[in-house]
Amino acid sequence: MFTPADSAHMARALQLAARGRYTAHPNPMVGCVLVNGGDIVGEGFHERAGGPHAEIVALEAARDRSKGATAYVSLEPCAHHGRTPPCTTALIDAGVGKVVAAMRDPFDEVAGRGLEVLEDAGVETAVGLMQGAAERLNAGFVSRVTRGRPFVRLKIAASIDGATAMAGGESRWITSPEARRDVHTLRAGSGAILTGIGTVLADDPSLTVRDVETQGLQPLRVVLDSRLRMPAAAAMLGLPGDTLVCCTSGQESSALREAGAEVQAFGAHGDVVNVFEVLAALGEREINDVLVEAGPRLAGYLLDKDLIDELVIYQSPHIMGSNTRGMFATPAWEALADRRPLEFTDVRRVGPDTRITATLTG
Amino acid sequence: MFTPADSAHMARALQLAARGRYTAHPNPMVGCVLVNGGDIVGEGFHERAGGPHAEIVALEAARDRSKGATAYVSLEPCAHHGRTPPCTTALIDAGVGKVVAAMRDPFDEVAGRGLEVLEDAGVETAVGLMQGAAERLNAGFVSRVTRGRPFVRLKIAASIDGATAMAGGESRWITSPEARRDVHTLRAGSGAILTGIGTVLADDPSLTVRDVETQGLQPLRVVLDSRLRMPAAAAMLGLPGDTLVCCTSGQESSALREAGAEVQAFGAHGDVVNVFEVLAALGEREINDVLVEAGPRLAGYLLDKDLIDELVIYQSPHIMGSNTRGMFATPAWEALADRRPLEFTDVRRVGPDTRITATLTG
Repeated sequence: MFTPADSAHMARALQLAARGRYTAHPNPMVGCVLVNGGDIVGEGFHERAGGPHAEIVALEAARDRSKGATAYVSLEPCAHHGRTPPCTTALIDAGVGKVVAAMRDPFDEVAGRGLEVLEDAGVETAVGLMQGAAERLNAGFVSRVTRGRPFVRLKIAASIDGATAMAGGESRWITSPEARRDVHTLRAGSGAILTGIGTVLADDPSLTVRDVETQGLQPLRVVLDSRLRMPAAAAMLGLPGDTLVCCTSGQESSALREAGAEVQAFGAHGDVVNVFEVLAALGEREINDVLVEAGPRLAGYLLDKDLIDELVIYQSPHIMGSNTRGMFATPAWEALADRRPLEFTDVRRVGPDTRITATLTG
Repeated sequence: MFTPADSAHMARALQLAARGRYTAHPNPMVGCVLVNGGDIVGEGFHERAGGPHAEIVALEAARDRSKGATAYVSLEPCAHHGRTPPCTTALIDAGVGKVVAAMRDPFDEVAGRGLEVLEDAGVETAVGLMQGAAERLNAGFVSRVTRGRPFVRLKIAASIDGATAMAGGESRWITSPEARRDVHTLRAGSGAILTGIGTVLADDPSLTVRDVETQGLQPLRVVLDSRLRMPAAAAMLGLPGDTLVCCTSGQESSALREAGAEVQAFGAHGDVVNVFEVLAALGEREINDVLVEAGPRLAGYLLDKDLIDELVIYQSPHIMGSNTRGMFATPAWEALADRRPLEFTDVRRVGPDTRITATLTG
């Protein structure tokens, strides 16, 4: 059905799409390649919400060579008026002969609608080429529109023997400068960073993106803080970007609000903030990806509630020994059969450290 | 000094040497390539102690084309009568014009002696090409002859969060069949496998090599067992290969000896067997490489005594949680600065698991 040339062009479209990694959200990353007579005549990607879609950028680059061209797009073209006119209209008007999409629009209500509009106008369509890669690229966007909550990625920095802090709490720094720089790319690709009040009180982290070009965008910092112990003097409140403090109802918050924080009350889950509600609220705020940077208590809690989609574990070449804290404070599983299975999706070296990416599989 | 062709031939010699990985010990692995007029005219490796050395095999393959040839050898040729006549004599008699050795003989007393004999006979010599790779290949042999003790490699099977067993001791199996098969190649390359009596009593392991062609060789199984609690019915005592039980003096051992174990008494180090003495004894038995397969107590003890040269850590894609045992039971280090630094020398995937090899650097 698809030729090697089709795959090469779609791979290029996906590569282009990824250029919007730090800036396109809350929109999906989309790339488009226009091919005419075997030659690439136009390329584009969606850089920023409110800016032109990938298809429009590619059509503008191709000008009259888009007539009879094939468009390779990493996501089904939109058929609705959003902040910009529909891409289907632009593709039809430009005389594009065929559209190959990696995946349908994940919105159930409109999935296939863009392809239908194109077909009705006599444009040939095909869908599903490199669909897995396209879905992984926009896992956050897909999660938000299909599950109503962001994709949750937990970042862990540990020693090779699995320690994330000394018993006394010392954890700065376990991993290398190279690994910490890599974390900033994870932050830059996330709409929000989630942490617990324990981490704020212990480390007073900034949780900002540094040394990555995001056109000034900063992820929303979200602090789970049931009893509203967040200090008005917390470092992050004086830094670029917004901070949302999530407490349970009945907490006094005027000092924090004056310090610039947004404070929102949620239901309680035992003695902690109901994280399901928090994630739903982040979904409503159009947050696609949440990066969790927290201690073993929150990590274990999220694991227990099946709320972790992906783990990114940096392992430093050190043995920290037995007087340390682990990655996850979990319920006391008795048997090996109780352990939680993962799949390693990527294993690589980052400076002197390793970085292992894993998805939860069961 | 050395040309790219020299390097290619030495790389081949090292590759040949590695074919003796499971069979050459206690001898070093050695490979030899004979090159005449740019052509490889003979190759050889040392397969088994008592069998012909690499140089002899290569000379026999080359016959009269060894006249004027260059010999690339991964280790300085021997000049002494051992179980076989000296290789230097054979090289000289065959009319070899030049010998390039990757490294000198590690025995201080004879280092350079083989090259000297060759030079005296008018054979040109050079040394040091790919020396690092040659030293790594024979790290065990080098350790034994220079330090009087084997190279100590600790194998660990853990979950990604650093657990090696559930709190109750359950640990079968943490890693995949692929990883466990890989462990058999580590065993096959070792002269001895060291474990603690705790592991024997808990798991009754066999510690034999299976599914790797070793020409019938089995590593010596060494059990640290200060109070001689080793059961005469232990599975390993009924399996191919020998078992050495190391206790402190004054223990009654007739039942164990009857069951086929060798029992040896060593000094005590606190309430455990003095491992320094055990390793020295293994060195005297011509054991080059020891693979440690033990629990966190012995692993932590060896770490604390600076007796671990290399770690091989298999990590399975599972979270085992906080109700578990770690990799190393260590003294209670207080500060992050107390942690032990490593260097990752190899990171790869083995089936669904990862395998990280690391050396201790501080």
